[in-house]
Amino acid sequence: MSVRFRKLALIGIGLIGSSIALAARRQRLVDSIAIATRRPETLAEARGLGLGDIYTLEAAEAVRGADLVILCAPVGAYGALAASIAPALEQGAILSDVGSVKAHVLKVVGPHVPDGVHFIPGHPIAGTEHSGPAAGFAELFAGRWCVLTPAPGVPPAQTERLAAFWREMGSMVECMDAAHHDMVLAITSHIPHLVAYNIVGTVADLEADTQSEVVKFSASGFRDFTRIAASDPVMWRDVFLTNREAVLEMLGRFLEDLSVLQRAVRTGDGARLEALFTRTRAIRRSIIDAGQETAAPDFGRSHEAPPVPASAFLRDHGGGDDA
Amino acid sequence: MSVRFRKLALIGIGLIGSSIALAARRQRLVDSIAIATRRPETLAEARGLGLGDIYTLEAAEAVRGADLVILCAPVGAYGALAASIAPALEQGAILSDVGSVKAHVLKVVGPHVPDGVHFIPGHPIAGTEHSGPAAGFAELFAGRWCVLTPAPGVPPAQTERLAAFWREMGSMVECMDAAHHDMVLAITSHIPHLVAYNIVGTVADLEADTQSEVVKFSASGFRDFTRIAASDPVMWRDVFLTNREAVLEMLGRFLEDLSVLQRAVRTGDGARLEALFTRTRAIRRSIIDAGQETAAPDFGRSHEAPPVPASAFLRDHGGGDDA
Repeated sequence: MSVRFRKLALIGIGLIGSSIALAARRQRLVDSIAIATRRPETLAEARGLGLGDIYTLEAAEAVRGADLVILCAPVGAYGALAASIAPALEQGAILSDVGSVKAHVLKVVGPHVPDGVHFIPGHPIAGTEHSGPAAGFAELFAGRWCVLTPAPGVPPAQTERLAAFWREMGSMVECMDAAHHDMVLAITSHIPHLVAYNIVGTVADLEADTQSEVVKFSASGFRDFTRIAASDPVMWRDVFLTNREAVLEMLGRFLEDLSVLQRAVRTGDGARLEALFTRTRAIRRSIIDAGQETAAPDFGRSHEAPPVPASAFLRDHGGGDDA
Repeated sequence: MSVRFRKLALIGIGLIGSSIALAARRQRLVDSIAIATRRPETLAEARGLGLGDIYTLEAAEAVRGADLVILCAPVGAYGALAASIAPALEQGAILSDVGSVKAHVLKVVGPHVPDGVHFIPGHPIAGTEHSGPAAGFAELFAGRWCVLTPAPGVPPAQTERLAAFWREMGSMVECMDAAHHDMVLAITSHIPHLVAYNIVGTVADLEADTQSEVVKFSASGFRDFTRIAASDPVMWRDVFLTNREAVLEMLGRFLEDLSVLQRAVRTGDGARLEALFTRTRAIRRSIIDAGQETAAPDFGRSHEAPPVPASAFLRDHGGGDDA
């Protein structure tokens, strides 16, 4: 089934927003693209890159006449954005987003959505640690999941239209309860990011001479944490502010488990350590079997770093970074 | 300055041991290679791969007549190994190793080392998450650091001979106090591994249906943790048993910092979260500037995964996995 929208409005044009613009254009999913963003310099950059057809600093202007509106701004800005665009939303339009949390989005945006507008929050699980309009590329979503969490009462046919849009951009689509999404993402994404930010912060507090050696010997595992911890600060601040309950729940479990490990190290309980270290290999295996990773060793990253379609294995950084 | 050894004895032939065999051969650094390992099937595998000239299940036999002996077995086996090879070590030989901890190695091996044998523990900071003799490749050490921690009284000229051996295999070499090495590696390598093992363990305890979604959405950060947590269980058990003090010290700092973050999430302290998330970018930048990483986004790993020399960016898994 082919899907086509008359006018796509992107509110925010960071990594995710610009990638949607490029992918939707390439796949001929839209007639025209309106781009709204808060900062004039970001808008100028988007215009310079030729990402859209209409450029404006007023979100309401971008959504006027649009049959698909996607919020690609930091989640913290959603409430105010929703209030400002609500009067301009067209009857029958789909309103969606790309934020990393979903229950909060339903809560703060939902009340502003007029009757006759189909509100279907979404979360493409794709990203890199880079941000801004120039960071986007059309293949970002290829082979990656996109989760949709439709508001109550949205007709299944509308959800299917949006799902088809994402599939055309290369995504695999799954519908899910928003609260469940938030719990799963808390452990797969939010806690790993929190831990990575934390360990890099611990290093930042080390004595200067030790710190320079940490940088030198970073290939020993730490380097991967710094890549994760280089993600957009505002976006991640908003993730932790808006998915608090799920993050604290999963962080509690993580800390309980870490206490057990800490005691095993302190008491020299080798059997317990080895048992855990053996068990975790099974999870790795299931991820490889699920096609979300290759079994090949991580021999390093190409210096050329071409956007790789289909086989691209990307890190999640959820929403865009500017609006 | 060219360096050449008459007979290299490798005790243990996992990832690191087999990579040394291949690199030393290719660079013509040795006349012959003797390989000793504990398990007959591993020895047969090494023989099948043509990694050496002499194959034996007796470590003492391998070291006889060797002017360079490198322990590539799990650190937990070092004490017994040192006792068994001591009588066979040749006067003037260099005895080294590749373990991820160094103070413990000096403590358990040192007392067995006869006068006239030069004991210079080493740690090549290179690796992949794969183990066994077939996992090795000659380019593993290219562009990676190797830390040497000579025992007291070793003549500098002997340390320089070993350093030259590593440089010929592509490494950059640094000498360091063993205790300082252990503290730096605790935060750059051991804590990241402990945390990765822990978070994957937390997931393993989730309800089955949630777990399958975790696997599905693993691209959101979790996948990187599972790769780290797929490392050799016995080797990592030994790391935590033998670098206990440094690990507990750094884990203490990590947990203090995490408590502060946890409170910031609980109280909704967005300013504190954003400040940390911004500060950690600077560390990332210094790692890229130090040439230990590229700025290119992590667009994914090649399915071909060719061994990449010079530009290889590898994860540390320290010692070999079998002896």
